[in-house]
Amino acid sequence: MPIDLRLDASEIVLFTDLYELTVSAAFFDHGFNEPATFEVAVRKLPPNRGYMIAAGLERLLEALENYRFDDAAIAHLDSLKLFKPAFLDYLRQLRWSGTVRALPEGTIFFAGEPVLQVHAPLIEAQLVETLVLNQIGFPSMVATKAARCVGVAGGRRLVDFGPRRSQGIDAAVIAARSSYLGGFHGSANVLAGKRYGIPVFGTMSHSFVMAHETEREAFADFTATFPKLSTLLVDTYDTVRGVRNAAALGTALREAGIKLQGVRLDSGDIRDLAVRSRAILDRAGLGEVAIFASGNLDEYKIADLLAERAPIDAFGVGTALAVSDDAPAGDFTYKLTEYNGQPRLKTSAGKISVPGRKQIFRALNPSGGCYADLVALIDETAQTVAREFRPAPADVVALLEVQLEDGKRRIPRPTLADARERVTSGLAKLDARIKAIRKPAEYPVRHSAALGAMIIDEKLHAETRQD
Amino acid sequence: MPIDLRLDASEIVLFTDLYELTVSAAFFDHGFNEPATFEVAVRKLPPNRGYMIAAGLERLLEALENYRFDDAAIAHLDSLKLFKPAFLDYLRQLRWSGTVRALPEGTIFFAGEPVLQVHAPLIEAQLVETLVLNQIGFPSMVATKAARCVGVAGGRRLVDFGPRRSQGIDAAVIAARSSYLGGFHGSANVLAGKRYGIPVFGTMSHSFVMAHETEREAFADFTATFPKLSTLLVDTYDTVRGVRNAAALGTALREAGIKLQGVRLDSGDIRDLAVRSRAILDRAGLGEVAIFASGNLDEYKIADLLAERAPIDAFGVGTALAVSDDAPAGDFTYKLTEYNGQPRLKTSAGKISVPGRKQIFRALNPSGGCYADLVALIDETAQTVAREFRPAPADVVALLEVQLEDGKRRIPRPTLADARERVTSGLAKLDARIKAIRKPAEYPVRHSAALGAMIIDEKLHAETRQD
Repeated sequence: MPIDLRLDASEIVLFTDLYELTVSAAFFDHGFNEPATFEVAVRKLPPNRGYMIAAGLERLLEALENYRFDDAAIAHLDSLKLFKPAFLDYLRQLRWSGTVRALPEGTIFFAGEPVLQVHAPLIEAQLVETLVLNQIGFPSMVATKAARCVGVAGGRRLVDFGPRRSQGIDAAVIAARSSYLGGFHGSANVLAGKRYGIPVFGTMSHSFVMAHETEREAFADFTATFPKLSTLLVDTYDTVRGVRNAAALGTALREAGIKLQGVRLDSGDIRDLAVRSRAILDRAGLGEVAIFASGNLDEYKIADLLAERAPIDAFGVGTALAVSDDAPAGDFTYKLTEYNGQPRLKTSAGKISVPGRKQIFRALNPSGGCYADLVALIDETAQTVAREFRPAPADVVALLEVQLEDGKRRIPRPTLADARERVTSGLAKLDARIKAIRKPAEYPVRHSAALGAMIIDEKLHAETRQD
Repeated sequence: MPIDLRLDASEIVLFTDLYELTVSAAFFDHGFNEPATFEVAVRKLPPNRGYMIAAGLERLLEALENYRFDDAAIAHLDSLKLFKPAFLDYLRQLRWSGTVRALPEGTIFFAGEPVLQVHAPLIEAQLVETLVLNQIGFPSMVATKAARCVGVAGGRRLVDFGPRRSQGIDAAVIAARSSYLGGFHGSANVLAGKRYGIPVFGTMSHSFVMAHETEREAFADFTATFPKLSTLLVDTYDTVRGVRNAAALGTALREAGIKLQGVRLDSGDIRDLAVRSRAILDRAGLGEVAIFASGNLDEYKIADLLAERAPIDAFGVGTALAVSDDAPAGDFTYKLTEYNGQPRLKTSAGKISVPGRKQIFRALNPSGGCYADLVALIDETAQTVAREFRPAPADVVALLEVQLEDGKRRIPRPTLADARERVTSGLAKLDARIKAIRKPAEYPVRHSAALGAMIIDEKLHAETRQD
């Protein structure tokens, strides 16, 4: 019997807010199905973020390529007694035929920039709103959180320890993938390792120590089975005594030609315990035994620990990463920006949207650093917008790339390693002040002159739309 | 081609932290597989929570009943080159045979109480740690968040609008189910409606208005297709003008015998706009047209709006609910409390665990209200613990119920409606001060005398475990 954690392809199309279906049915009824453009953007960056990392695209594209209302889906919609047969017939024959332009996974972006653009017959573009936002938002939040941890960890190993606290299994798998994309070294999540080839790591549980009569026996038993995974959890009882027990074992093992890998601290005053652990290990001649820290860590605590010179070699980051706890959701929106060749905007208080099909242009200085972005209209080019940057750029690159055309992928699928490398190289180009984990500086993002003019026109036009 | 959102039953067993497998392999190697008890509890309640609602159990039980390492799972584990053939053979033949006692879904609980107890051969209990925590934690957080909203909404309709901001699709489906369990009236999530029979609701999108040349045409078109779903989104441009357009349509429709259902406010100063909208509608003789509010709402904002007498009839709650934004993860732990008949505890700084197989007893006063809980040993009874409550209780009930025995469900599966009713009746028994959404009073939870004595003994015992 399959259990209901399973999500079949035929159910993906039902992962939608009801209004996307009712609105689509009303569009259908009234003959609205000309080409439309919707764009995804964050209205403002989450607290303490100076940049974000795009993620989630590859899975979304896979879902769109396989978007089908099969008999089971149609039967369910019919059972709601809301939809006319003609609309259900339309859905039954629908194959998703849109064009998707998007930032490749791992691209750095900022508030107000179109992360992803759907250009499709209106109904097709409307139907996928929830799917698109859901698949792009959370992965991008986790990739960003991970990159922030990497940014402060100074090359030390970082491992995702979050599956137990994730918001479901899907969330845990996404978090493992997105944190690896953001620069983590791996995850505890065995399923994510299988799905995505992510390196998996693990140490030892408190229960392993507790099930034994003594801590020393537990350490010896675990190390006998897994000498190469011998990172011993030393805080089940008194941590300092635990480190001494680990050191005693490490010394004995060395005589047998086996290297104790590390000790793991998971509670208490981590900095103080790391200093004391290092001293105990060093005095025992175990300078090569690593100190692994975990327990409610995040980028802020990692930065503080390292600023206080805590001798820690690796970090397990759990809850804070897995749910992006200081910003568990981003302010991502999916807004109609053009219909039937005409720009569109909404002027809701505090939630104005930006009209037009757009492109993002990023200016690079002679040393390769990026220093400003321009959001422009799609028919503008790097050459035409170059003169709008001050100082004059050494190079200008367009960031949105065609991902799907007529609903099909036209370019080879990039690997997760490609996306991870894109994060590394992208962050290397970004000013340190933008990357600060607290009160970052604001990266300059402006509208091109042509887009600015369109916004003014459309605001005026919007006023006539309520007459 | 299946897309990789799918999660087969054979993959559930791989949804684990690597350490659960390595620790299990080390237990196996050293002959540790006597009966063990692990218990799930929250160390402390999340901020501003005076109580929590248990949820997620039914899906967990389904996973445990179907727990199998099939050939694909074994092949993957073998590929990690960590596990000996004997251990893989053991996993291949493993059928999950444990006993699960747990709070039925919808039960109110507090910090320090065992929400769920696994009693099984040590390795079986160890292997499911991540699965258990993942499946209980987030659903309970959302059910709690939802119950808090219900508690302040005074019977007004509440709808889950969160799927687009959820942490993945699984999270969105869990949130829809858990919020309904917590007392919401339904969800926008069509997939969750299909899976769980939850009522689905929807209004209208900004894009529907924007795709039309004028707002009036959009309102007319939508209402023509869905007269019974005619809740018109009035904030695409100027909200007050939008309400006037809706009122004009409502008046015209009335002459045709059709009732306009409502207007929806999604931005701006919601209280002020609700007052003005109500006045406009009432002046048009549309007193029965409802005002629906959405846009970054949560229990705090709903309480404030209603305290300010905002004339709102229904609320859509999105992001804050879907990710439980002020507490996106709970401090749930899964700790070994007994091995081979002997109690166990850890004494980690700030993270001490409570030994023994336990039961929770809840004291009721003569009017049926609950006023204190006692965490006791499993062989204590309502009669034996009754004398430990002050004042003397009119009744004492044991809360943990046997859910699985020998890995199989022995009692009929309760319905989602049962769980929802349990929330309602449970909250009716709880003092209002505990239910306050800000700075709630603390509900009294104590240890029985017998448990207290065991803790003292085991703390002493723990000191000898590091010799």
